[in-house]
Amino acid sequence: MFMPPWLITYQKDQLSGDIVAGIIVSVVLVPQAIAYGMLAGLPPEVALYSSILPLVLYAAFGSSNTLAVGPVGLMSLMTGTALLELNLSSTEQTIAAAHTLAFLVGILLLTLKMIRLSGIINFLSHPVTSGFISASAIIIILSQLKNLLGLSIPRGLPAYETAYRTLEQLPQSNVYSTLIGLFGLLILWLFKAPLTRYLKTRPMNSTARQFASKSGPLLVVALSTFSVYYFSLNTEQLVTIIGHIPAGLPSIQFPDFSIGLVKQLLPNAFVIALIGYLESVSIAKSMASQRREKISASKELQGLGAANIAASISGGFPVAGGFGRSMVNFSSGANTPLASVITAGLVTFTLLSLTPFFFFLPKAILAAIIIVAVAPLINIHAFKQVWRYDKTDALSLLVTFFTVLIINVETGLICGAAISIGIYLQRSTKPHIAVVGQVGNTEHYRNIDRYIVTTDPHILAIRIDENLYFANTNYLEDRIMQLIADKPAIDHVVLICSSISIIDTSALESLESIHHNLGKAAISLHLAEIKGPVMDKLKGSPFIQKISSQNIFLSTHQAMCYLKNRR
Amino acid sequence: MFMPPWLITYQKDQLSGDIVAGIIVSVVLVPQAIAYGMLAGLPPEVALYSSILPLVLYAAFGSSNTLAVGPVGLMSLMTGTALLELNLSSTEQTIAAAHTLAFLVGILLLTLKMIRLSGIINFLSHPVTSGFISASAIIIILSQLKNLLGLSIPRGLPAYETAYRTLEQLPQSNVYSTLIGLFGLLILWLFKAPLTRYLKTRPMNSTARQFASKSGPLLVVALSTFSVYYFSLNTEQLVTIIGHIPAGLPSIQFPDFSIGLVKQLLPNAFVIALIGYLESVSIAKSMASQRREKISASKELQGLGAANIAASISGGFPVAGGFGRSMVNFSSGANTPLASVITAGLVTFTLLSLTPFFFFLPKAILAAIIIVAVAPLINIHAFKQVWRYDKTDALSLLVTFFTVLIINVETGLICGAAISIGIYLQRSTKPHIAVVGQVGNTEHYRNIDRYIVTTDPHILAIRIDENLYFANTNYLEDRIMQLIADKPAIDHVVLICSSISIIDTSALESLESIHHNLGKAAISLHLAEIKGPVMDKLKGSPFIQKISSQNIFLSTHQAMCYLKNRR
Repeated sequence: MFMPPWLITYQKDQLSGDIVAGIIVSVVLVPQAIAYGMLAGLPPEVALYSSILPLVLYAAFGSSNTLAVGPVGLMSLMTGTALLELNLSSTEQTIAAAHTLAFLVGILLLTLKMIRLSGIINFLSHPVTSGFISASAIIIILSQLKNLLGLSIPRGLPAYETAYRTLEQLPQSNVYSTLIGLFGLLILWLFKAPLTRYLKTRPMNSTARQFASKSGPLLVVALSTFSVYYFSLNTEQLVTIIGHIPAGLPSIQFPDFSIGLVKQLLPNAFVIALIGYLESVSIAKSMASQRREKISASKELQGLGAANIAASISGGFPVAGGFGRSMVNFSSGANTPLASVITAGLVTFTLLSLTPFFFFLPKAILAAIIIVAVAPLINIHAFKQVWRYDKTDALSLLVTFFTVLIINVETGLICGAAISIGIYLQRSTKPHIAVVGQVGNTEHYRNIDRYIVTTDPHILAIRIDENLYFANTNYLEDRIMQLIADKPAIDHVVLICSSISIIDTSALESLESIHHNLGKAAISLHLAEIKGPVMDKLKGSPFIQKISSQNIFLSTHQAMCYLKNRR
Repeated sequence: MFMPPWLITYQKDQLSGDIVAGIIVSVVLVPQAIAYGMLAGLPPEVALYSSILPLVLYAAFGSSNTLAVGPVGLMSLMTGTALLELNLSSTEQTIAAAHTLAFLVGILLLTLKMIRLSGIINFLSHPVTSGFISASAIIIILSQLKNLLGLSIPRGLPAYETAYRTLEQLPQSNVYSTLIGLFGLLILWLFKAPLTRYLKTRPMNSTARQFASKSGPLLVVALSTFSVYYFSLNTEQLVTIIGHIPAGLPSIQFPDFSIGLVKQLLPNAFVIALIGYLESVSIAKSMASQRREKISASKELQGLGAANIAASISGGFPVAGGFGRSMVNFSSGANTPLASVITAGLVTFTLLSLTPFFFFLPKAILAAIIIVAVAPLINIHAFKQVWRYDKTDALSLLVTFFTVLIINVETGLICGAAISIGIYLQRSTKPHIAVVGQVGNTEHYRNIDRYIVTTDPHILAIRIDENLYFANTNYLEDRIMQLIADKPAIDHVVLICSSISIIDTSALESLESIHHNLGKAAISLHLAEIKGPVMDKLKGSPFIQKISSQNIFLSTHQAMCYLKNRR
């Protein structure tokens, strides 16, 4: 029988940490899940169903001990957009499409694992990811203002349109809804920083402190629900409430997999899968490195893939590891994925027995929970740091940020990746090429523009600080010819290849042409410091056959000594 | 008044070479231009109009002394496809659209010059270009078989469909057309190699030899036209002829620039402009390097842009520098662009006085001229060489080749460029990271897996053979942590940065995280051989502030000596 590794080596003393963390996370998860369900335009039970089986499956197949899987903000936003694009007429159809979407996300993650493409997220640079996440957080917050203020603005509008309409309708804000929402924001903010700081100064049990500091969402849910019920604020549409949540567990069902639906959802599923994977792996890695544990990107694909398929067949929508909840799990002392299994158990209990208590829960409070959860993702500090270090990276951050805000999440991500790659390629198109000379009487050769060095008028030693490939070979040819033209006394050119790890076919042809052209001008070409793997590949190429082995040197110093003595 | 540089410095002794080359090129150009017009689905006069003003404008604004501008095979094919896609009903409309296309191509080339993007073609690797050209040559040949065999197969079909239908209809081939076509092929082939070889053995004037060996197209045109006329082969549709060419020069007119048409043509215009530019620059460069002349990519954009705008307003279609004709120009002794001006003059004379002579010219002969002109572009030798040196480059060649053949030219080119870039990025994603040790008692440090070296059990010296950027930082982090885990005695890690020319923001963050994680394991991080430009950028970053300057060394040897002595 299959047993996850952590279960085989489970130790008794890990249990108390897991139980405490499992309970605390469930306290955070239940209101958050319902809120994210609202963000995706799905009823609360779908979000709660997504918080049971996926957690258990991730515990069985994932590689992180502390990642807290379930509905997350960004994926819920994107799920909502993807479902809106289908233009479905009934809620039942929308829910069914959400199941299909989760299934596709799961299948795509497992496919990425099978074709060993766990490295695909490497092509999103940190600045792009940062700009992307900040902009998404702003979109999420903008989308929730209407719920906070009790306005009715259609979903799925571009961010600027949502912002504009919210501002325009600000005077029509519902005063009860707004008061409840602002009250929620205030309490949640107090719980986030000031209360945690205050509790640290009090002499109390750390578990109690953890529990107290994380119970903000539960408290605002309880207080606001009671207020609505007590003052009958839901009558005459004073305050919008979430209403009836069916009690009981979901039935296990295979999702609708009609070709038409799958075709429409596939592009969005791909982006959602990538984002979920990227978010989960980076959270899992950052936690694991703090405890010297190991995360396997490929096992994460497997765990998240299984979790999404589980969500799909148990009535849920796409899930991933959430940043906030994972941090709660980690800092509450979770030792193994058992904590998540306990959380799943408590969500089950909620669904079986506690759903009637959520009837009067106002949507304004859910909006407040979402806003407080995603606000820390707007990272202006990161932008400042990037700006100071590298203006082009800052540019790619800004382009991604504004593309996400103005067009949409998918386009922003694709633009960002394209720009990152473009900038990198552009940089390597004009490689740094240094003319070097000898430092004193040492064996070191350094850039003549930066060090006091001695050079030989008959020998030109050039260090190429870049791989040679199709995009920069033209530049190399032009540059060498320029350098020769400036110095008519030169008989020998030494190319120092210490920085070259790749010479592709185009570059090989260029080297042949450089050799040919130098030969015509009675200049001989020499190579120094070729790396092992590069030399292995060059052997047997027509270029190396033309250059005799006498012209290839282990070090620059050897080359220079040999050429000086031969003169 | 503007004068091109070659005109200012013109020498008397350059004149005879220019006159001879100008005449010989015109003998090749007239039949070829008419043939390429047919390939583009345009009447012969449009092709001849494209062979006057564009040549003069290129002579004024281009940078090559010997590039022969005019209609070329690949661009004519793509122009034909672009025009077919418009679904125009009349020939007049098609011709007008061809003028608009040439105008767009010209504007795009000038725009590339203005925004200094002359380097854009660097992103097409040699293997991709090679696969692209070979496949295009095959498409061109396939498209001409029907003219050779006198079959009627619609234009614009995918290459495999054209091949299939040609095979299917082979039994219905027109015997006269086929005989004329095969005769043309035979004569042209004889002129290409055997006659040239034979003439070299004869004692004769080199100008006469050049003229004789290049007059193949003119000869087959004359012979076949006379035969059709004499035997009345054009009656009863035995042989298709090109018919009436209006005598006289084109009027100068601004092309139709309606938004709808421009929008439809723009994507094709962009690809045609790129291909024309790529083809012209590579021909011009290869000729210039043989005579130690200089080609400026930016001036080529200017010259070709001007030539295409000239083609557009003088009733022509897109033009570029042709390989075959440029070689004829070069080897016939052209010294300056005056040769092209003379060619333009002779084409003008042809249009004024000789058009009636082309009335009976059979299309089968034009097909033969095209086939013989493009056949040498199918380069199997290049594929073999690439295959031997680098299998992934060979793969990108093959993918481009088959995409062009199966889908179309544009998709093939885009796929090829994407694959080239993808392969390069993939290679740099898992950089070569070598653990190094001291070679004997020298100051050299080399890979422990390749050389006999000595290492210190407490110091891990790692050379990173690649730029550090977003796509490979994860790998670097993982690899260093693995190396540490294997060797518990290690107290110091030295990163040798001799191959690193770029550290982007993502990599900087990874280095910070490596420094942080090593610190937790009581291992200190040192850097050696950081290049000047990299260090300039790192200065002031939080990473370098954390690492003290004591931990940064000029050379690996210095670092090792310092660390050994400190122990």
